[in-house]
Amino acid sequence: MNQRHAALLDDPQVLAFLPILYVAWADGDLSERERAVIAERLRDAPWLRPEARSRIEAWLDPTSPPSASELADVRALIERVRGTLGSARRNVLAAQGEAIAHADLSPEALAAAEELAALLAIPADDSASPQAFAQVSVPVEALGVALDGEFAAVRAKVRAYLDDPDRRMYGLAKDEQRALVRGWLSALEATGLMKLSFPGVTTDAVDHRAFMTAFETLALGDLSVVVKAGVQLGLFGGSLFFLGTERHRAHLHDVASLKMLGCFAMSEVGHGSNVAALETTATYEHATRSLVIHTPSESARKEWIGGAAVDARWATVFAQLVIDGKRHGVHAVLVRIRDDEGQPAQGVRIGDCGVKMGLNGVDNGRLWFDHVRVPVDAMLDRFAKIDEEGQYQSSITSPDRRFFTMLGTLVGGRVSVGSAGVSVAKSALAIAVRYSVARRQFGPEHGPELPLLTYPTHQRRLLPQLASTYVYSLAFERLRARFAETMATTDADTRSLEAEAAGLKAIATWHASKTVQLCREACGGQGYLAVNRLADLKADSDVFSTFEGDNTVLLQLVGKSVVSRFQKSLASGGAVAVLRMLGGLAAEQVLDMNPIEARRTDPSHLRSRAFHRATLAHREATLVRTVALRMRKRLAAKMDPQAALLEIQEHLVAAAIAWVDHLALRWFDEECERCADPEAKRWLVRLGDLHALARIEETAGWYLESGWFAPEKARAVRKEVEALMREIAPAAVGLVGAFGIPDACLAAPIAFFDPAHPS
Amino acid sequence: MNQRHAALLDDPQVLAFLPILYVAWADGDLSERERAVIAERLRDAPWLRPEARSRIEAWLDPTSPPSASELADVRALIERVRGTLGSARRNVLAAQGEAIAHADLSPEALAAAEELAALLAIPADDSASPQAFAQVSVPVEALGVALDGEFAAVRAKVRAYLDDPDRRMYGLAKDEQRALVRGWLSALEATGLMKLSFPGVTTDAVDHRAFMTAFETLALGDLSVVVKAGVQLGLFGGSLFFLGTERHRAHLHDVASLKMLGCFAMSEVGHGSNVAALETTATYEHATRSLVIHTPSESARKEWIGGAAVDARWATVFAQLVIDGKRHGVHAVLVRIRDDEGQPAQGVRIGDCGVKMGLNGVDNGRLWFDHVRVPVDAMLDRFAKIDEEGQYQSSITSPDRRFFTMLGTLVGGRVSVGSAGVSVAKSALAIAVRYSVARRQFGPEHGPELPLLTYPTHQRRLLPQLASTYVYSLAFERLRARFAETMATTDADTRSLEAEAAGLKAIATWHASKTVQLCREACGGQGYLAVNRLADLKADSDVFSTFEGDNTVLLQLVGKSVVSRFQKSLASGGAVAVLRMLGGLAAEQVLDMNPIEARRTDPSHLRSRAFHRATLAHREATLVRTVALRMRKRLAAKMDPQAALLEIQEHLVAAAIAWVDHLALRWFDEECERCADPEAKRWLVRLGDLHALARIEETAGWYLESGWFAPEKARAVRKEVEALMREIAPAAVGLVGAFGIPDACLAAPIAFFDPAHPS
Repeated sequence: MNQRHAALLDDPQVLAFLPILYVAWADGDLSERERAVIAERLRDAPWLRPEARSRIEAWLDPTSPPSASELADVRALIERVRGTLGSARRNVLAAQGEAIAHADLSPEALAAAEELAALLAIPADDSASPQAFAQVSVPVEALGVALDGEFAAVRAKVRAYLDDPDRRMYGLAKDEQRALVRGWLSALEATGLMKLSFPGVTTDAVDHRAFMTAFETLALGDLSVVVKAGVQLGLFGGSLFFLGTERHRAHLHDVASLKMLGCFAMSEVGHGSNVAALETTATYEHATRSLVIHTPSESARKEWIGGAAVDARWATVFAQLVIDGKRHGVHAVLVRIRDDEGQPAQGVRIGDCGVKMGLNGVDNGRLWFDHVRVPVDAMLDRFAKIDEEGQYQSSITSPDRRFFTMLGTLVGGRVSVGSAGVSVAKSALAIAVRYSVARRQFGPEHGPELPLLTYPTHQRRLLPQLASTYVYSLAFERLRARFAETMATTDADTRSLEAEAAGLKAIATWHASKTVQLCREACGGQGYLAVNRLADLKADSDVFSTFEGDNTVLLQLVGKSVVSRFQKSLASGGAVAVLRMLGGLAAEQVLDMNPIEARRTDPSHLRSRAFHRATLAHREATLVRTVALRMRKRLAAKMDPQAALLEIQEHLVAAAIAWVDHLALRWFDEECERCADPEAKRWLVRLGDLHALARIEETAGWYLESGWFAPEKARAVRKEVEALMREIAPAAVGLVGAFGIPDACLAAPIAFFDPAHPS
Repeated sequence: MNQRHAALLDDPQVLAFLPILYVAWADGDLSERERAVIAERLRDAPWLRPEARSRIEAWLDPTSPPSASELADVRALIERVRGTLGSARRNVLAAQGEAIAHADLSPEALAAAEELAALLAIPADDSASPQAFAQVSVPVEALGVALDGEFAAVRAKVRAYLDDPDRRMYGLAKDEQRALVRGWLSALEATGLMKLSFPGVTTDAVDHRAFMTAFETLALGDLSVVVKAGVQLGLFGGSLFFLGTERHRAHLHDVASLKMLGCFAMSEVGHGSNVAALETTATYEHATRSLVIHTPSESARKEWIGGAAVDARWATVFAQLVIDGKRHGVHAVLVRIRDDEGQPAQGVRIGDCGVKMGLNGVDNGRLWFDHVRVPVDAMLDRFAKIDEEGQYQSSITSPDRRFFTMLGTLVGGRVSVGSAGVSVAKSALAIAVRYSVARRQFGPEHGPELPLLTYPTHQRRLLPQLASTYVYSLAFERLRARFAETMATTDADTRSLEAEAAGLKAIATWHASKTVQLCREACGGQGYLAVNRLADLKADSDVFSTFEGDNTVLLQLVGKSVVSRFQKSLASGGAVAVLRMLGGLAAEQVLDMNPIEARRTDPSHLRSRAFHRATLAHREATLVRTVALRMRKRLAAKMDPQAALLEIQEHLVAAAIAWVDHLALRWFDEECERCADPEAKRWLVRLGDLHALARIEETAGWYLESGWFAPEKARAVRKEVEALMREIAPAAVGLVGAFGIPDACLAAPIAFFDPAHPS
């Protein structure tokens, strides 16, 4: 042993590699693969003397590992040399090697040392080791500007509203919560922000972006207020705005001023997700020019209707329109459900959904209609009307198309709920990250305990979520622009927007639930106390994943939409396109297996956005294509389409998620381009790197299975995620600071100090 | 095309394979790999005529897929033949082929067809297709017997207590909840069950198993009651029982009858997980033979102490024992904190932790001690005492060992909290599974809507969780036995038990949180209503993952324990063992890459417990060994042990989880052996299969990376999980029925009917 050791330290050619050889063993798990990488690289090195090569190989012999004292001697030598190097080069393995070998180092040896360090995915810089954890400053203001986007002034106004310690509650009974929220809603109205809701009617804003931005920002505060505002302005007001005509839009001033309180009566207890199956009827009676609204069965009762239990005087009721015994599908009708004193209108029965997991400031209720008669003018008739002769008229001839156009009113709600989910994640992360730096637990034997965020398992809980929150935040900025742009186009094809909104809503709200859960656990017992806000964030936002469209149902819609676009692109290409696609299978599989790409593990590659996007794109393309193929074969075999869809359901949902993942990263990248501050941009890019690599790491099994990754690449991705977390951890407090959450709104004591050290 | 098609239907040798050839295409994603599997199998078939072979190959040509009408013709032929077969053989592909080819089929061709169907992982039985979803009966009673285990009579008594519709609350303010829970606790005392707590004192039971079983069963009901009982009997009573001597044990009758209400004052606000760092002092004063209990700083205040805010009169206080200025580490002292009227005792200040996310029926409080004097007899002195001369005496000389022995009181709590988590999962699953069969949504165009559990995405949410719940339920049966057996042994080495309890507690409580969340989402809006119980199950059980030891901290303890045992086994083997281990690296890697094992995808292999256990064992062994290696190298390089542990923290936690995964499955298997009913046992085994394969599927990326799986194997595992879910879905209602949850306790309306169809 000692002979080998001495030989190693005596040979100048070997000295250049000493840091690498040390780290390889110090890392503990020197694998066959690492050994092979080193051996292979040096086999092709004509400049390496055979003695040097055999010495290196002896050192790497797994049956004869170095002893503790050998390793310690080598480490001491490296430490000595590190002290002589400038701070920029101190932690570069190749530079250490150069300094050890000094005069005798050839350029080839230096290049080989650099390449090996990269191939082995050894972090070049160990200064970010947990022991050295210390905060670094980040351009908080510039990052805030980047996140706030175009409507910073609107956000500022909402933040001013939220920065009020009295706008906080917990532990109250349902009725007390409802009363408080009613007051907060009036205060919100007094700010004038609600007027942003209806472009061209209550505001001269040209589109909904300012309103939607305000809504997202509002979701940094109490979520019952957010949902009450969303029901009143987005759903009820939105139905008048998007589905109604002039006489309905005339009400919008009263809607925005809360003089006319309404609700959105779509869901029925028997038909939560399957809206096409609604049973409530609106039967036209020509003699009186009226519509009779009726609940024909218990399963047809309107359920979960926000505002219905107490506050709403009006409802937009979705019902099957029946004229002369003929059904024309689901249409919306404006119906008075309570009089000015709050008593139920004639024929309307109202129930209370009662206590919920959260959002108890929202009065969800039930509605039954017993032949309630309204004038035909009450029908929201932008897309279909009943003419003077009692004939049904619609500019949209296809009933399916008409149905989906009317459901288009939901798109705005999905954009808003999704982005509210991002705000929830921001609040939770701001609390947990700030606590994780203030709070210390365990540590070295004779020293202070370490901040929680020092621990890799703690970084793992919080930092990928932080990175994804940045990515989704900017992606929603883009989605709002897409919404505005689509709605501004007369008779626009809304299908792309619908898929984008549904997909982002699903991943952002699941992201919110997961983030709040991880933050709660990261704060331990403190996270369980109501005063620290995580309890309400969790309970209130939990329903986001199933309301405004159940996420799993939405992803199936996304999947179908994406796959059908793919199939159409094939169909328009004819038989040649089909053959090309099928031929592509084989050709692409060869590409997948490209041994160079599949094995590249250098950090510059792993951190290149080209690699991230190609990798996400590959998964998207493969899953969409294989879903399409499987559907095609089943339909070709005359299988019932519904049965066929059922069989490939999990595959379809996976394809939808892959498509959204790719979309969100693309949009984030494009939005990042707007960032003028280079230092802020560098942080955005780094957060994007962590988000992308963590997403890729999560599905590494799939990439390995498909041959897109060689095993060493999956391992390198994991190591790169860890390296990124070490880099980002010291900046985390600044990064959550850029969310711009007012102190009174952040509220949780643990966000400001460790209760163990209150002073 | 037509020529190829005709050729196919004309050739008797090809006919035998027709069903396989059909399904391969109908499945849609005929891959290069499947094509290769078929081609390869038939290449080695001497009995196959060259024309037949080339016809088959032409059919499989990816550049020339069959047309819709070709596939339809083939399907029609197969359907015709299926009609002539008995129900047992109707869906066996090879049997279909035999019938199509009739007279002309050779045994070799039949064998090849069977083998191909297995190799391609084509489910042999498509009768379980979602369309055909219908419930099958399972031996509910026998399964219940298997789950209930040895103490069925105790469970029956608890169930009788729980079967009371008035023992249910939600939406109440904290103080109302506390009052109700106090009443329910007295009712529980009246059943006599609390006497089971202290073997040899209040019951003639020989060990804690009956009490722990009662506790687990109680957790099917309100969780505040469970935690209150746990604090009073398990923690407070347990501290007297395990740490005290005769004079302390004399109190246990009053503890079990609730005459003496106590709490367990261990955690301090500054020291939640790091108990060794507690600051509270118990200073011995020889002149008065007393101990002075003192809170020296704000970070030393006792925090989250269940029972302290209102009910407790006594506390077991954990404090640093100081004698003559010398610290002897953490010891427990029985302290009066309130008088009989409920006023704080002299020198004791008490606070209320206030509203929490859940468990608001539990009065968690804070305690500060200002030089509170108690007689030296108040010290729980089983393991250490202060003698008449004022000298410290302990039978355990190592301070570390003594500390961990005292902390051993927590082991019982961890066993109980973990198994309470399993009960929570049972309640949530019983509600969600029953609703998923009653509730229908979407479906074929002209037919009834389908039950939710028909959908693969819905099966994916509920069924792996159901399977794991069975596995953990039996594993805890075994853990309770291990607890009893260890505690019965004088001076037993409790370290194995501690690792087992900590590990199972961590995975079972995370399992509970995940299960409740999935169940909530699976019930949509109904799951969000408090009346349907999932809200409280979630909020109440959420803290399980951080109390009685934070899961991440516990898993590090487990990891350290497992790795150190591994290292000791090496050390005792000397240098030879080290070499064998290092040599083993290479040898095992060759085994890993065994192309036959890594590529076996036949269901009989995938469902063999030998495969599951070898696979879990391989991950455990590899992770433990590599952690040990990485630690060894760091320590060899003179790295600070704490810093070294920090660097490998994620690796250590992964190793711990792998170890527990393997342990849980082994214990489940061993407990299954006790099941006398063969049909029940068959279901247990199948649930074990789903649990094991789903766990393996989750970490498939790791198995691919390490070469233990070839890509086709990962894919086959996924398909087998899907097949198992299809098999288990129709039995799911029976399988949750075996949990034996009384109707009044199950409580959620959606567990009994779809609210859309209440009659």
